[in-house]
Amino acid sequence: MLAIVLASGGMDSCVTTAIAAHESSEIAMLHVSYGQRTEQREQQAFNGIADFYGVTRRLVTSIAHLAQIGGSSLTDKNIEVTRANLASTEIPTSYVPFRNAHLLSIATSWAEVIGATRIYIGAVTEDSSGYPDCRPEFYEAFNRVIEVGTKPETRIKIVTPVITMKKSEIIQRGLHLNAPLHLTWSCYQAEDKACGICDSCALRLRGFREAGVSDPISYATPAI
Amino acid sequence: MLAIVLASGGMDSCVTTAIAAHESSEIAMLHVSYGQRTEQREQQAFNGIADFYGVTRRLVTSIAHLAQIGGSSLTDKNIEVTRANLASTEIPTSYVPFRNAHLLSIATSWAEVIGATRIYIGAVTEDSSGYPDCRPEFYEAFNRVIEVGTKPETRIKIVTPVITMKKSEIIQRGLHLNAPLHLTWSCYQAEDKACGICDSCALRLRGFREAGVSDPISYATPAI
Repeated sequence: MLAIVLASGGMDSCVTTAIAAHESSEIAMLHVSYGQRTEQREQQAFNGIADFYGVTRRLVTSIAHLAQIGGSSLTDKNIEVTRANLASTEIPTSYVPFRNAHLLSIATSWAEVIGATRIYIGAVTEDSSGYPDCRPEFYEAFNRVIEVGTKPETRIKIVTPVITMKKSEIIQRGLHLNAPLHLTWSCYQAEDKACGICDSCALRLRGFREAGVSDPISYATPAI
Repeated sequence: MLAIVLASGGMDSCVTTAIAAHESSEIAMLHVSYGQRTEQREQQAFNGIADFYGVTRRLVTSIAHLAQIGGSSLTDKNIEVTRANLASTEIPTSYVPFRNAHLLSIATSWAEVIGATRIYIGAVTEDSSGYPDCRPEFYEAFNRVIEVGTKPETRIKIVTPVITMKKSEIIQRGLHLNAPLHLTWSCYQAEDKACGICDSCALRLRGFREAGVSDPISYATPAI
């Protein structure tokens, strides 16, 4: 069974890659740059993880329209990347409108052409920033779109193996599967040393703290 | 009510634009190039139609991944654009895997940012090439994805006003609304004179014949 893994190069997608590699006979890896601030660093992390798993089928693509459209601190330099407030129930400025639908569309087109039957994506609902396109019902709805929007003989399902996990559980699962967490990149705003204060860093650091292990990457600021 | 119209520059999207302009207080127009053979000519048609309707909000974007992924005669020069066989029930080589999901994703992100509540798309089921992503159930499923994959306060619905129409009915509706059919481009393979023999030309010519009016654009070959 050939599976495609959508991987940003972050921790969730790294552990998702480890799970996909464990469950599939072959994995192909897909990375999409969309004009986010840290795209070079993410791509480096993506390639490091793909090398680690010996993946030869890779698709790295870049989409301009999410940056053209804007509306997010990740793609629009005029909108500040806010300090994390993990207690807030508001959707943070880092929300890229409907981003995961773009990623899944690309993965589905590629899957239909290369004959992959699974698309793995490391979306996380609970212990996350509250993005609407990270919830299970989004993936259920998208599976239906794939079912009716591809050729009759095409069979592709989205798999979200970490969606209900807490960050600390993802870390533990990754350690158990020997996933290369040291190669991952999560920070939303820096490319040399992780900032430690954006939403993504804050979630990651809290996860390591709760897992009782130390994060193998280094930070510009002390852990919050 | 602000509406986005997805427009290739073809006849179906031109008439859809006419309908959207009739039903909305303002329209914004979106065109996506995806490495298809006739993208320059399509973009010219798109801009002609947008000028005709005095549309100031336009987003023209280009995606590389559908051409990278291939699998279609529209994006891969190694796959021939086949002569039309309108009696066939096979999906033709011009099928671009899952293409309309990409277009809708872009439209949805843009709609969420600019506050549009309707996305018009000129998909046609019956009198078409049988692409799976042109059927009503695809759009119903995608509406559900939008509902669960965007912010709670976001309200966006896809509108497919010509989906059940025959080509001849689309032409008649267009004439009734004074749509600029002379500015449209449908041919899959030529950019100077329409070939008259590809699927898209054949469907268009049959539509005009059935509508009992003559096509205002010119063809390289006599009508089949």
